[in-house]
Amino acid sequence: MDSTLSRQEILDISRETTLYEWTSQKAMKPLVIDRAKGIYMWDADGKRYMDFNSQLMCVNIGHGDQRVIDAVRAQMEKVCYIAPTVATTSPRAELGQLLKDITPGNLSKAFFTNGGAEANENAIKIARMYSGRHKILVRYRAYHGATAGAITLTGDPRRWAAEPGIPGVVRIPDFYPYRAGKDLDDAEYTASVLNATEDIIQFEGPHTIAAMIIETVVGTNGILIPSAAYIKGLRALCDKYGILLICDEVMSGFGRTGEWFAVDHWGVVPDMMTLAKGLTSAYVPLGATMVTDTIAEYFEDHPLYAGLTYNAHSVGCAAGVACINIYKEDKLVENARAMGEIVKAELAKMKEKHPSIGDTRAIGLFSLVELVKNRDTREPLTPYNPRPDQLGPMPAFNAFLRENGLFTFVRWNTFFVNPPLTITEQELREGLAIIDRGLDIIDAAVA
Amino acid sequence: MDSTLSRQEILDISRETTLYEWTSQKAMKPLVIDRAKGIYMWDADGKRYMDFNSQLMCVNIGHGDQRVIDAVRAQMEKVCYIAPTVATTSPRAELGQLLKDITPGNLSKAFFTNGGAEANENAIKIARMYSGRHKILVRYRAYHGATAGAITLTGDPRRWAAEPGIPGVVRIPDFYPYRAGKDLDDAEYTASVLNATEDIIQFEGPHTIAAMIIETVVGTNGILIPSAAYIKGLRALCDKYGILLICDEVMSGFGRTGEWFAVDHWGVVPDMMTLAKGLTSAYVPLGATMVTDTIAEYFEDHPLYAGLTYNAHSVGCAAGVACINIYKEDKLVENARAMGEIVKAELAKMKEKHPSIGDTRAIGLFSLVELVKNRDTREPLTPYNPRPDQLGPMPAFNAFLRENGLFTFVRWNTFFVNPPLTITEQELREGLAIIDRGLDIIDAAVA
Repeated sequence: MDSTLSRQEILDISRETTLYEWTSQKAMKPLVIDRAKGIYMWDADGKRYMDFNSQLMCVNIGHGDQRVIDAVRAQMEKVCYIAPTVATTSPRAELGQLLKDITPGNLSKAFFTNGGAEANENAIKIARMYSGRHKILVRYRAYHGATAGAITLTGDPRRWAAEPGIPGVVRIPDFYPYRAGKDLDDAEYTASVLNATEDIIQFEGPHTIAAMIIETVVGTNGILIPSAAYIKGLRALCDKYGILLICDEVMSGFGRTGEWFAVDHWGVVPDMMTLAKGLTSAYVPLGATMVTDTIAEYFEDHPLYAGLTYNAHSVGCAAGVACINIYKEDKLVENARAMGEIVKAELAKMKEKHPSIGDTRAIGLFSLVELVKNRDTREPLTPYNPRPDQLGPMPAFNAFLRENGLFTFVRWNTFFVNPPLTITEQELREGLAIIDRGLDIIDAAVA
Repeated sequence: MDSTLSRQEILDISRETTLYEWTSQKAMKPLVIDRAKGIYMWDADGKRYMDFNSQLMCVNIGHGDQRVIDAVRAQMEKVCYIAPTVATTSPRAELGQLLKDITPGNLSKAFFTNGGAEANENAIKIARMYSGRHKILVRYRAYHGATAGAITLTGDPRRWAAEPGIPGVVRIPDFYPYRAGKDLDDAEYTASVLNATEDIIQFEGPHTIAAMIIETVVGTNGILIPSAAYIKGLRALCDKYGILLICDEVMSGFGRTGEWFAVDHWGVVPDMMTLAKGLTSAYVPLGATMVTDTIAEYFEDHPLYAGLTYNAHSVGCAAGVACINIYKEDKLVENARAMGEIVKAELAKMKEKHPSIGDTRAIGLFSLVELVKNRDTREPLTPYNPRPDQLGPMPAFNAFLRENGLFTFVRWNTFFVNPPLTITEQELREGLAIIDRGLDIIDAAVA
């Protein structure tokens, strides 16, 4: 088949022979992308876009880094794939060691998957095997993936089409001070959320609860940053009741928040941590479930009833090794922290200027602007899970960004600023200036 | 980190920092593999193994094909990953077109995943959305993957640790004439299985049943080949009751059985077909759910509530395009068919010679030998899901094969002959001769 298809042929054939995700097919208006480098991508007409969401919060090292491409090539020349039931390979060992080194506390062994959903599926499976308990505590404002287990853990509307889900999933309160009319560090609010959480643990019976799974910093559902007291409080509750704490760092890991992992901001060590996205910066699919040495010890004698054909795939592991070395060599975690301070300050300035901004939340290069109809009532600019006709000025805002060569994630009444960790101050300010101008469209609509 | 680890370092570090699948960690004795080419792999001591199972029935084109490696490199130099919610790419379109062309009937659109488990998860999700019905019919002798939905569809012991699974999964009878004391083409046996299946459909209520999912030829659980009357009978039952037929061709697809897909042997067109493994020959993870144009049409106006970060990953799609072109250029489907005839004939000869062989089943290069204690009673050589101390001579048999440089999949009282489709007659006969000698070990144990 001809590998030099025109832009229109790529669009037409994709439309005729493939299904697009999370959308009706008629509604999908894809770009055609045939080149990406650093923080930029180019469509087939040569138009350049600044990538202000690292695609789906995953291309942390930026696009087209030759060191990863070369590492993948070198591994493929040796061995592409070997059954994980039969053999190990050098990149598996190298990546295992690197993850043990960079993850906190006694997290010590990785179980490798294809992505984040499978990492979470295996985390809850391991929690149930290890604990002999069944229930899993989760929050509504959460996304953990789309396979049957992971989507049940998820609270957002993408869950509905897959219900009824797996049994044993129990909701605990979210931590969302802005919507509760509070400040992040409001001690009373934190105490009330923790108390409500402990109530549920008691109602459900602690001895029936295997694990609590949280996104350390909630991603798509709002960049909800925990207060120190809240996240330490969850760890304490888990310790008190013998419940395993699983931190989903699929989005928040690998420097995104200005630390290797978001838990590092508060010195919290989970019993398991799930990883994907930044693990390979999406160059090749890979996920991982990290477990503590205590959990690992259990599986010395007990069979680990978990697996997949592509477990510990050599090519994925080689890409992961290359990526982690790049984070280190290029000091990307440090750059995310420094650039994150600029994002935080600039978003705060925008809030002063634009009455449509209700709240801005940022930690490293993981940040969001929440738009409201009214600052006093904090009424969101759109309803929860809006229909297309309820989006108000959001599509026009998004179109403005695209026209001005900026791609980011615009969802309901929020938009994100999550560029690759390689971004420079100049590039960052350039992109934020486009957003600043775009916000006039929103202001006009709510005025 | 040092990328030239010794064999012992790779073993030690893998042991200390990673978890092995489907085993207690103490019991795992991995090889270290650092080179693979064609039908061979070499361990770190330079010992060569003939790969008689294509690893996990997936490396169909053989190891280290430069054309795939070059295609992956070329794609990575352009773009590694682009969000599937935003854009399409040339390899997505090319692979979509190729799959539409080689899959039967009106199967016309692909939804791309990371592997087979996710392909099956999405198939049942699509079936439920499309039909508005909930139940899924499945068989016990089946494996469909290890995520919460796929593992519930699965009937083998790997399911137990993930229970209770998703609701709505209902078992129908297996088709296993040998264990029922019948021949493959026994019309009465086929009729009895179909009647029992129809009974269950009626008991459950046809209007509550979204889909029936089957491995067209059951893989790990026994290379169970359907009779023409049985598989056509299932298709007819599904048509009669408005139930979608999903054929899992993750193992049996891409030439494995001597046709592009196993369904092609009987002219059966499923409503959905799930793919992985041979799709990329495992060089890079990729899976796909193929749907008919009728199902695709439904999602023109209705949102497809399914997705994953790595949907339609450019690198996976590029590997898939390269692989399919290799199947065509090198006539691998035809070679599988021709070599399959040799396997069938040689296994039949072995059966005459070795009293421990109860049955041999082969279709293309998808084949198995079933070992029994007694040919008359057909009592299996090991119990179902045997403990290590119930394996009898199987470990010694497996060790003999390994010592003689042959790797294959030995499971309970069965072993497989599923080499890469590139195998030559000479290589095939060489490997089969090793097996023939090994079988003396089994014979001696049952004598």
